[in-house]
Amino acid sequence: MSHGKFITFEGIEGVGKTTNIDFAKAWLEDRGITCHLTREPGGTPLAEEIRQLLLVHRDEKVSPLCEMLLFFASRAQHLAERIKPALDRGEWVICSRFTDATMAYQCYGRGMDLQMVQQLAQITHADLMPDTTILLDAPAEVGMQRAWDRGETDRIEQEKIDFFQRVREGYLKMAQQEPNRYQTVNADQPLLDVQIDLAKTLESLIQEHLI
Amino acid sequence: MSHGKFITFEGIEGVGKTTNIDFAKAWLEDRGITCHLTREPGGTPLAEEIRQLLLVHRDEKVSPLCEMLLFFASRAQHLAERIKPALDRGEWVICSRFTDATMAYQCYGRGMDLQMVQQLAQITHADLMPDTTILLDAPAEVGMQRAWDRGETDRIEQEKIDFFQRVREGYLKMAQQEPNRYQTVNADQPLLDVQIDLAKTLESLIQEHLI
Ligand SMILES: Nc1ncnc2c1ncn2[C@@H]1O[C@H](COP(=O)(O)OP(=O)(O)O)[C@@H](O)[C@H]1O
Ligand SMILES: Nc1ncnc2c1ncn2[C@@H]1O[C@H](COP(=O)(O)OP(=O)(O)O)[C@@H](O)[C@H]1O
Ligand SMILES: [Mg+2]
Ligand SMILES: [Mg+2]
Repeated sequence: MSHGKFITFEGIEGVGKTTNIDFAKAWLEDRGITCHLTREPGGTPLAEEIRQLLLVHRDEKVSPLCEMLLFFASRAQHLAERIKPALDRGEWVICSRFTDATMAYQCYGRGMDLQMVQQLAQITHADLMPDTTILLDAPAEVGMQRAWDRGETDRIEQEKIDFFQRVREGYLKMAQQEPNRYQTVNADQPLLDVQIDLAKTLESLIQEHLI
Repeated sequence: MSHGKFITFEGIEGVGKTTNIDFAKAWLEDRGITCHLTREPGGTPLAEEIRQLLLVHRDEKVSPLCEMLLFFASRAQHLAERIKPALDRGEWVICSRFTDATMAYQCYGRGMDLQMVQQLAQITHADLMPDTTILLDAPAEVGMQRAWDRGETDRIEQEKIDFFQRVREGYLKMAQQEPNRYQTVNADQPLLDVQIDLAKTLESLIQEHLI
């Protein structure tokens, strides 16, 4: 039995990650591929507890470096206890957000040092990078509008749009730097068209896997 | 007002770290130097909570890498919220155990990859290594016997002695590699003699600091 494929979905808020990982799982399982669906942050009870530490309101200021190390601690646990075992069983793992999200949001969005995050990624999973990263790409306004319609944000602030604009550009830059790993899908079109494009990408992954 | 000195105490169980950091603080304060005493693990409420995550009994297996990243997350918070502010106020910081303990115990003692821990140390505190590390050195049997007399261990197993022997050797190797930072004090002598040697070391640190 061969090792499964590790596929991550990335993109800013509202581009359709949650909608499309479910579609991808169903599409792949129709073709006989068992999929393990997971998402960051979290993935195991301990990984969840680590992330909870960051969400609790506390008087103590949390250092950005401490926060970053906690992100990667959570990710290390998720990899060791969920992602790697599933891949070893021959399942494909579909994960919504991974290290690229840390780079896009924390580095490109908020200015954290990219090299430092790359070093942590090397330490945490040099042996396991995603085989394929599907970037659902749409302008920040489109994603924000969808998240707004979904009822999750109360108003769309310019600051948020600028932030998501930087995050989107970060993703596009990474896609350019790693054209073999990244598959960019235009998410700024009707859902059916997004899924037609996505299915083509998945089809090519199956072909690759069979070779 | 000048920046304080960052002094760490290291050594295996029972060599006298707890006993001698109190002595060092009192000795330095008699000479007009304000000292901030702290110890790892812990040092701030969040840093404590992080370490608590590791101590809780859980069914989930904790990955060694997750554990290591949690150690350094705790350390990053301790540095940002306690150690650096005290040094900035001009206080000297005396810390019982620091990154060298991670290297001695996890790497030399348990075989974890030394280079990986060195990389994490670089990420977490490249800008702040201890100015001086005081290694209290004694044979493993001596330390174990003292810890035993203190009533903390129920019996002395050969396995434990071998482990602490490897840890001690790791410390001695680091002391040899960094002779400028490390000051080794023979802890296998009556406490009064240990403290006479320690006072000489502290005296030379004050002289250095005045230059
Ligand atoms: N291509 C699309 N066109 C229009 N609406 C979409 C499209 N894709 C997703 N949506 C809707 O946009 C909202 C956000 O999608 P979601 O999958 O939750 O995005 P994400 O997980 O990336 O934040 C949902 O209400 C979803 O139904
Ligand atoms: N030089 C010494 N000779 C004899 N006993 C000592 C000496 N130094 C410390 N002790 C005793 O050994 C025990 C362990 O000392 P402690 O300071 O707690 O060590 P550590 O913090 O390094 O584990 C204590 O009971 C202490 O009083
Ligand atoms: Mg979602
Ligand atoms: Mg002690």
